[in-house]
Amino acid sequence: MRPSGRNADELRPIRLTRGFTQHAEGSVLVEFGNTRVLCTASVEARVPPWLRNSNRGWVTAEYGMLPRATGSRTDREAARGRQQGRTVEIQRLIGRSLRAVVDLEALGERRIVVDCDVLQADGGTRTASITGGYVALADAIQTLMKAGQVRRNPLHGQVAAISVGIHNGTAVLDLDYAEDSDAETDMNVVMNDAGHFIEIQGTAEGHAFRRPELESMLDLASDGIDRLIAEQRKALEA
Amino acid sequence: MRPSGRNADELRPIRLTRGFTQHAEGSVLVEFGNTRVLCTASVEARVPPWLRNSNRGWVTAEYGMLPRATGSRTDREAARGRQQGRTVEIQRLIGRSLRAVVDLEALGERRIVVDCDVLQADGGTRTASITGGYVALADAIQTLMKAGQVRRNPLHGQVAAISVGIHNGTAVLDLDYAEDSDAETDMNVVMNDAGHFIEIQGTAEGHAFRRPELESMLDLASDGIDRLIAEQRKALEA
Amino acid sequence: MRPSGRNADELRPIRLTRGFTQHAEGSVLVEFGNTRVLCTASVEARVPPWLRNSNRGWVTAEYGMLPRATGSRTDREAARGRQQGRTVEIQRLIGRSLRAVVDLEALGERRIVVDCDVLQADGGTRTASITGGYVALADAIQTLMKAGQVRRNPLHGQVAAISVGIHNGTAVLDLDYAEDSDAETDMNVVMNDAGHFIEIQGTAEGHAFRRPELESMLDLASDGIDRLIAEQRKALEA
Amino acid sequence: MRPSGRNADELRPIRLTRGFTQHAEGSVLVEFGNTRVLCTASVEARVPPWLRNSNRGWVTAEYGMLPRATGSRTDREAARGRQQGRTVEIQRLIGRSLRAVVDLEALGERRIVVDCDVLQADGGTRTASITGGYVALADAIQTLMKAGQVRRNPLHGQVAAISVGIHNGTAVLDLDYAEDSDAETDMNVVMNDAGHFIEIQGTAEGHAFRRPELESMLDLASDGIDRLIAEQRKALEA
Amino acid sequence: MRPSGRNADELRPIRLTRGFTQHAEGSVLVEFGNTRVLCTASVEARVPPWLRNSNRGWVTAEYGMLPRATGSRTDREAARGRQQGRTVEIQRLIGRSLRAVVDLEALGERRIVVDCDVLQADGGTRTASITGGYVALADAIQTLMKAGQVRRNPLHGQVAAISVGIHNGTAVLDLDYAEDSDAETDMNVVMNDAGHFIEIQGTAEGHAFRRPELESMLDLASDGIDRLIAEQRKALEA
Amino acid sequence: MRPSGRNADELRPIRLTRGFTQHAEGSVLVEFGNTRVLCTASVEARVPPWLRNSNRGWVTAEYGMLPRATGSRTDREAARGRQQGRTVEIQRLIGRSLRAVVDLEALGERRIVVDCDVLQADGGTRTASITGGYVALADAIQTLMKAGQVRRNPLHGQVAAISVGIHNGTAVLDLDYAEDSDAETDMNVVMNDAGHFIEIQGTAEGHAFRRPELESMLDLASDGIDRLIAEQRKALEA
Repeated sequence: MRPSGRNADELRPIRLTRGFTQHAEGSVLVEFGNTRVLCTASVEARVPPWLRNSNRGWVTAEYGMLPRATGSRTDREAARGRQQGRTVEIQRLIGRSLRAVVDLEALGERRIVVDCDVLQADGGTRTASITGGYVALADAIQTLMKAGQVRRNPLHGQVAAISVGIHNGTAVLDLDYAEDSDAETDMNVVMNDAGHFIEIQGTAEGHAFRRPELESMLDLASDGIDRLIAEQRKALEA
Repeated sequence: MRPSGRNADELRPIRLTRGFTQHAEGSVLVEFGNTRVLCTASVEARVPPWLRNSNRGWVTAEYGMLPRATGSRTDREAARGRQQGRTVEIQRLIGRSLRAVVDLEALGERRIVVDCDVLQADGGTRTASITGGYVALADAIQTLMKAGQVRRNPLHGQVAAISVGIHNGTAVLDLDYAEDSDAETDMNVVMNDAGHFIEIQGTAEGHAFRRPELESMLDLASDGIDRLIAEQRKALEA
Repeated sequence: MRPSGRNADELRPIRLTRGFTQHAEGSVLVEFGNTRVLCTASVEARVPPWLRNSNRGWVTAEYGMLPRATGSRTDREAARGRQQGRTVEIQRLIGRSLRAVVDLEALGERRIVVDCDVLQADGGTRTASITGGYVALADAIQTLMKAGQVRRNPLHGQVAAISVGIHNGTAVLDLDYAEDSDAETDMNVVMNDAGHFIEIQGTAEGHAFRRPELESMLDLASDGIDRLIAEQRKALEA
Repeated sequence: MRPSGRNADELRPIRLTRGFTQHAEGSVLVEFGNTRVLCTASVEARVPPWLRNSNRGWVTAEYGMLPRATGSRTDREAARGRQQGRTVEIQRLIGRSLRAVVDLEALGERRIVVDCDVLQADGGTRTASITGGYVALADAIQTLMKAGQVRRNPLHGQVAAISVGIHNGTAVLDLDYAEDSDAETDMNVVMNDAGHFIEIQGTAEGHAFRRPELESMLDLASDGIDRLIAEQRKALEA
Repeated sequence: MRPSGRNADELRPIRLTRGFTQHAEGSVLVEFGNTRVLCTASVEARVPPWLRNSNRGWVTAEYGMLPRATGSRTDREAARGRQQGRTVEIQRLIGRSLRAVVDLEALGERRIVVDCDVLQADGGTRTASITGGYVALADAIQTLMKAGQVRRNPLHGQVAAISVGIHNGTAVLDLDYAEDSDAETDMNVVMNDAGHFIEIQGTAEGHAFRRPELESMLDLASDGIDRLIAEQRKALEA
Repeated sequence: MRPSGRNADELRPIRLTRGFTQHAEGSVLVEFGNTRVLCTASVEARVPPWLRNSNRGWVTAEYGMLPRATGSRTDREAARGRQQGRTVEIQRLIGRSLRAVVDLEALGERRIVVDCDVLQADGGTRTASITGGYVALADAIQTLMKAGQVRRNPLHGQVAAISVGIHNGTAVLDLDYAEDSDAETDMNVVMNDAGHFIEIQGTAEGHAFRRPELESMLDLASDGIDRLIAEQRKALEA
């Protein structure tokens, strides 16, 4: 039995609210149950130095947590003067995942920054960020296309992510904080709409996992991501 | 005529949503028109070093802006490794303003941190932060009182803030971004529920202001703050 | 009775010593009683990035305190690796105040940096910095004019500053450290030679202040600044 | 055909030189072909703050690259004042991997720091670090046991790591820099001596990978790690 | 002929003004010609962590330059967030030199910080700092002795410093900026009142120096320091 | 009697291993007994900003210590976010020493960075770095000459360095850690192949040194450096 009463293969309620704030080219509030992340996609005219005069663009991500998004307050990274290792790892993962579905040449020499700021955390903030970040990115790209600033669609696929894990000896989908804190294994899976892998990051917490456990987790993830891809499509067509 | 069509003494629609997030002891979304700030108040057992064993508590504030809260994206302060001068100034102002209505001895040796994070900016983020921060603070203190952790109410008053300015030669209340950017003078006024001043910060932008202009602005501010104090009370009684 | 024995409307002895050091285009030691600040104005050929090719110049200020300018030693900010919030606030105030009397177009594409370094502190270091910084700035601009580097005088007025406060229930002018530490209210007022306001920053320490108290403080400040303006003129004509 | 002429399932020559430097409790030079990493394990009496008085120890890792370990010089992180995202990611991975085979209670309240410094890089520095770091750790723990400072062996297994990838459409083992730079997929696998997974990190570079590709890579990794485990044992028995 | 017209063995006018500022236990303005450094010595009750409960004290120095102490403005180190290599080198030298004449056990568990801040630079700021810093230190120690806080005098000698160099092929004493900038060799010598060496730092600029040149420079330095030691004594007896 | 049993004028075994790593234009492992430093020289096309378009090049050095190069582990400077004062001092010394034998105009507008990373420390790391760094620099310059990138040899001499000190009242050469820690005086001497001085840095530890002691140390250093210059030549001719 999962702490939340969900079935092993059951996602939390997923919500994708487009246009949550008004300034960004794409602005999406993504909710995986009580986890709430504001994803904004900002289009900028300049690219990083190593891409100047390359006719290629760039997509990058930054991740942050409001200090009291969590059960006890964590210090503000701006006040401490440095981002934590965990933050850096997560934003690199989000950036790589989103770039996997973008044709950077078609994007042209501009940069899109996807900011993922966690307003409330209950497990799965990085997978929610990727899933919601994709929708914000799609909206920003739509803006570029409507303005005639790109000739062909730089998006060549969809990308979404979900966590899976082994909890009480069973493979489960979309762990919330209660499950995550005492899971034996925790894996984040990023896939595209063709069902192929973009990224897998699995970590044994407590005890090492076997190949069959891995296979069960991948099966769950694959199903879950199918549903997230459908949610994204529904949101974008709304 | 003001850009927004408001009268000179008209506030934008004010909204105070308590319980906006679930973890913090106080969590309020404050809206002054399109300006939206999430204020959370977190109670911590420890005090800053200089207050240890003093039987006194502390109230402090931190301020942040999501990178795309504004019309064009600003760099994330955590990524730059330092808070900007403007951020530091604002969070010091919020902290001083809130402490002005707290009896730090009655609070006991604990610290309350009020985090004000701007989700969307349209002028007046610091005055919204003080006004909403007060409500979050009141909720956090209520939690302490219900739990019997403080014997007498550390709050001895209410505090709210509003901006006033000279725009096109006229004194106006609660400037939005459009007005703020070409006001000749910009003043932030913080007052308590007795109608006395906690803080005044007025700056001439462009041309110096005269004593009668100052008097008009103070009159407007005083009226505006009366209405904000009433809004706070209504929200807290809801 | 004030700790120093002064009358409520009495300034401390004011001294403005031009040419205190030899390298800077303007170099003034300003003394408000025991408060001593060295203000140098340095002319630089380059402007900040956002002003390049704008035909406009910039005036900015930096503020520092020698570690033992105060009763007990404070850590050197260079050693700590960051400027304190108080420092940032003060230098922003000085910069805004000085810019209020400079025509940045007439200055041309160059930058003047006014460094205010406190050699000895006894209250009022920011108001002394503005008052002395103006004289250093005027000297630097005079250098530019003599060299024919600017066609018309970029200075269109004088600026000076003074502190006022409520001490023992009475409004007093130009607080020294002893008064400042137990004043109920502390206000810094910056005005030009036409008697108009450039900046007002008033803070209740301890108890909130009423409108009539504010009016008395403003009256005192206005008189005090008239005298400072006269001192500046006298120094510059010497 | 692989650039190095190796078979798809062929490791580079592996060398583990114990006692490479004299001060550390464990000091191992690990070589995977031309990749050379110096791993030292240092035992310290103190633990991180959150473990004080817990009777538990800690194992952590730090990773660095000499500036000219690579084809072109990279800036020294100490001079830049911050570690790069990549560095932080890698050292967190090494630390988690090593902790997976240590009983932190048996270790007692002390900390072992495994420093992995890359003298020469040719792909696979993180997998070499884990594989060599384990041997350094084992030596340090042996020192503790010989000195009677721990009662039972805190090591409850071996851990090693290898990279696999898809290169020219084929799954290959232990990528060198030439392969790594144009692999379509790159995965790092960490396993223990029971053949179970400690960590999997797979990233699609260029095109997403399918489930059968994943399976082939995992098979290769599993075989490769068996051989590394044997090399470690041989080195430790020498 | 030296640029200043001085003889090869001639010091610039030396001035040591005690009590230059009022707060520090020792406060001395030292002038070597146009070089002016404010040296304050501050007594603190606490020692660095590694000396706690050792019954020994510590003497340390910090060095700074006001931004416009020099011909063209240098960035403020506090604003840049780090001290330059040159600053670090100089303050370490001053600290070592002063500690050479202090019995740290006699000082007892307290710390004296000697801050040397250059108000105006014209060559020789580090030697002026050591020479003036000694007088400030002596005053601070005198304060401790008068207050009965130390039983025996922790000062067991005097220390002073001077620069020598090879300019136009001749050994010269006490270089000013004009000489220093085109000297072929530059050496700073620190000696005690017994005429023994505390520190020698000689650097060839341009061309390497021979043993006889070194001997001439040391002879000059030795004579110059004798005179500085006499100046210090005169100042302290005044 | 010296702790190592060496004669007063005896160097430790010196070893210079060229080509220790493969990527750098010059790569030398230098050993002074148990002190081992990896020196790499990297040629870069760009020069520091102040040399752009000057037709002159630059040679600079950076110094680092692996965390466990020493008896007890020292924190990694990259992790702490700043280089220590000692590091900065040493790398400035190495850079100045190497530049003393380079004709920067002949080098042309390029930069050579000599990285000296201490793998194992037993006293004398800075003198080993200069001595080995010279050989790495010579190899890098040889590479430039063979490639026809410089017309005439920018090296106009050799440079080497050794430490001397007073230990148990006797002048000794090339101190190891055991001697260094209780020497009364410690001096580092840098000379060229003509036997002239490039740099002298002598520090009294404990008691001040007299002129005759200085002379003895300089004699020892001069002899020692002759032998190092010969070792360099032998290594470069191998």
